[in-house]
Amino acid sequence: MNSLYASRMGTIPRSFVREMLKVTQNTEIISFAGGLPNPRLFPVQEIAAAAVTALAGTDGSSLQYGPTEGYAPLREYIAQRYRQNDGLNVTADEILITNGSQQGLDLIGKAFLNKQDAIAIERPGYLGAIQAFSAYEPEFHSVPVFSDGVDIDGLTEVLRKRRIKFFHTVINFQNPSGISYSQDKRAALAEALRPYDTLVIEDDPYKELRFEGQARSSMRHWLGDKAVLLGSFSKIVAPGLRMGWVCAPRETLDKLIVAKQASDLHSNSFCQRMLCQYLMAHDIDQHIATIRAAYKRQKDVMLAAIDTYFPAQVACTRPDGGMFVWATLPPQLSAIELFEYAVQESVVFVPGTSFFVDGGGAHNMRLNFSNADEDKIEEGIARLGRIITNLLNRKGGSP
Amino acid sequence: MNSLYASRMGTIPRSFVREMLKVTQNTEIISFAGGLPNPRLFPVQEIAAAAVTALAGTDGSSLQYGPTEGYAPLREYIAQRYRQNDGLNVTADEILITNGSQQGLDLIGKAFLNKQDAIAIERPGYLGAIQAFSAYEPEFHSVPVFSDGVDIDGLTEVLRKRRIKFFHTVINFQNPSGISYSQDKRAALAEALRPYDTLVIEDDPYKELRFEGQARSSMRHWLGDKAVLLGSFSKIVAPGLRMGWVCAPRETLDKLIVAKQASDLHSNSFCQRMLCQYLMAHDIDQHIATIRAAYKRQKDVMLAAIDTYFPAQVACTRPDGGMFVWATLPPQLSAIELFEYAVQESVVFVPGTSFFVDGGGAHNMRLNFSNADEDKIEEGIARLGRIITNLLNRKGGSP
Repeated sequence: MNSLYASRMGTIPRSFVREMLKVTQNTEIISFAGGLPNPRLFPVQEIAAAAVTALAGTDGSSLQYGPTEGYAPLREYIAQRYRQNDGLNVTADEILITNGSQQGLDLIGKAFLNKQDAIAIERPGYLGAIQAFSAYEPEFHSVPVFSDGVDIDGLTEVLRKRRIKFFHTVINFQNPSGISYSQDKRAALAEALRPYDTLVIEDDPYKELRFEGQARSSMRHWLGDKAVLLGSFSKIVAPGLRMGWVCAPRETLDKLIVAKQASDLHSNSFCQRMLCQYLMAHDIDQHIATIRAAYKRQKDVMLAAIDTYFPAQVACTRPDGGMFVWATLPPQLSAIELFEYAVQESVVFVPGTSFFVDGGGAHNMRLNFSNADEDKIEEGIARLGRIITNLLNRKGGSP
Repeated sequence: MNSLYASRMGTIPRSFVREMLKVTQNTEIISFAGGLPNPRLFPVQEIAAAAVTALAGTDGSSLQYGPTEGYAPLREYIAQRYRQNDGLNVTADEILITNGSQQGLDLIGKAFLNKQDAIAIERPGYLGAIQAFSAYEPEFHSVPVFSDGVDIDGLTEVLRKRRIKFFHTVINFQNPSGISYSQDKRAALAEALRPYDTLVIEDDPYKELRFEGQARSSMRHWLGDKAVLLGSFSKIVAPGLRMGWVCAPRETLDKLIVAKQASDLHSNSFCQRMLCQYLMAHDIDQHIATIRAAYKRQKDVMLAAIDTYFPAQVACTRPDGGMFVWATLPPQLSAIELFEYAVQESVVFVPGTSFFVDGGGAHNMRLNFSNADEDKIEEGIARLGRIITNLLNRKGGSP
């Protein structure tokens, strides 16, 4: 009965990370696998209070169907934050509330992609984007990312060869690599895209999780209407609420609204009001500062442990923010093989192959530092270090 | 820059109803347009209490990412209800939690439909389904519905002519027509589908809103694995929570889970727990009885007002449940024209054309009775009656 299914079902990769959730719900396991925020930092009591307030004294309207675009005060809040923090001239009618950034990616696929349309993504690239776009069966062109952003020459070559509908980038503290685009690289990216009618999809869930250095400009600063921005409350409030947004020029947003209407009518009315209530009643920047400080400590512990326990042949990124470190094993070691040994020692990570659409990543591992406590991070890295050392010894590499 | 968009964006119809929401939020207007439940019946205080309980004493897990399939106890609750109330042997691993039924429809489109695949729908048919499926650019074959269900001969002809992937039906108190399939018609539908590998999509959001008569069997009773069931808490708890489900055999559910993962990872973890908490702590059947009684009164008021104020040439359905009456104007009257006059008199409904993929419905109107209070229903129908009478007089029909 397989031919009943759509052809796309053969092309959407399953999420290793999502499958892993089943394993990682076992609390014995030290998990560097998920992209999960630390739940100890969720504002549980504040959300409970906001829930009660959002429901109190209403005529039931916070539980009723709502507009597809989203709850107006929440849209205004997001627009205002772009204006204040990013100096971008964003208005509320350029904001669509989505079920996390993931739905933003899906709606972009739905609104833009015909089968076999060409799009460009980063290599390694964000798995969720690869999944979302795969459902629309595009032709992926992946372009390497360096420590300061995408390879502009590589991207230019792709742009010359094919009509590229959009380039998807996780511009700050990339998932999976942890790298961020330098200010110069952003300007160069804008320059490279300028001659083409290619959009940039600026997927930016980690923006607020900057541990050091200055915030950098959004691509909208240079590209205006050719930049579609994705944001999320998952990393700064809580992911279980599934609250994210797309910021796009009105013509584009209008298409995304039609796509959203067909997909699920609108996002949760109650949670939009609850979230808005929470944001109005609390200083989100103070809360973000707490998260930042905690994740910075966790990142420092992970990098220090890597320096201590991993053989010197393992290279890794040293991110300025976000949730991930990207490690590169020596060529004789397979991350998949390492993973199998690691599970036996109750520690998990995501092997790099998940983040490549065209092969690659066999020697890479994505290590998440946001969801494990500091002592567990040290212990987990120590275990991985022992396994890597043993494997290297066995395969004749010198540790 | 229009060629940037996907071809499907030209085919998804906009929802008249969703656009209308903007108008109907003006409380001066008497709206028979939406498919909105009556918000005065929402269990607001109980939901607020459930929200607090769902968050109390947790380690933050109710705000964390969750499994794509949904919250296990909620899936079990739904499965158990199928076993108890419908005598169906449904297990929790056949349930996927979705953002309302609308997302169930979208995921079915995503999992099953290649461009130009043929599907069958009802005529008139549910607009949300037409929108959701349109995004996958299928070939629609619409089959008339009579007062006891679909035209079996018409459907059989379609099945003989083309390989039909699925037939979508709103089996109880259909949207828009208000009709329900008789038990005999269900058996005949099963018989008609049996020779083909065509699925039935049994879209059943109104099932619990039965005012009189006996509940009838689900198509799963006859067709087993060839029946995919959609359900929703929108009409029995509250639609703003966007909580629905798909019930499908495991092989099919597995595909839908992949589609859901790519679409938005999972539904709101917090609201799933809150809803589950509410369902555990309260007698939902008692609450449903309250809703049923209220809607039955509202339906009775609407039908009595129609008998009083509408000219005899206007025919209408007399539903046993649900939220809609379907009226048929005499051929010289256009529902769109009537609509324009009605807006001027601050009363709105949905003209029938929205529910047809291949023309038709020009003389039909969908009248919702669940979202207006009884005195407003009478007043609104009286206004419509006056306009219809005037139009008929002007066009030479005798009222």
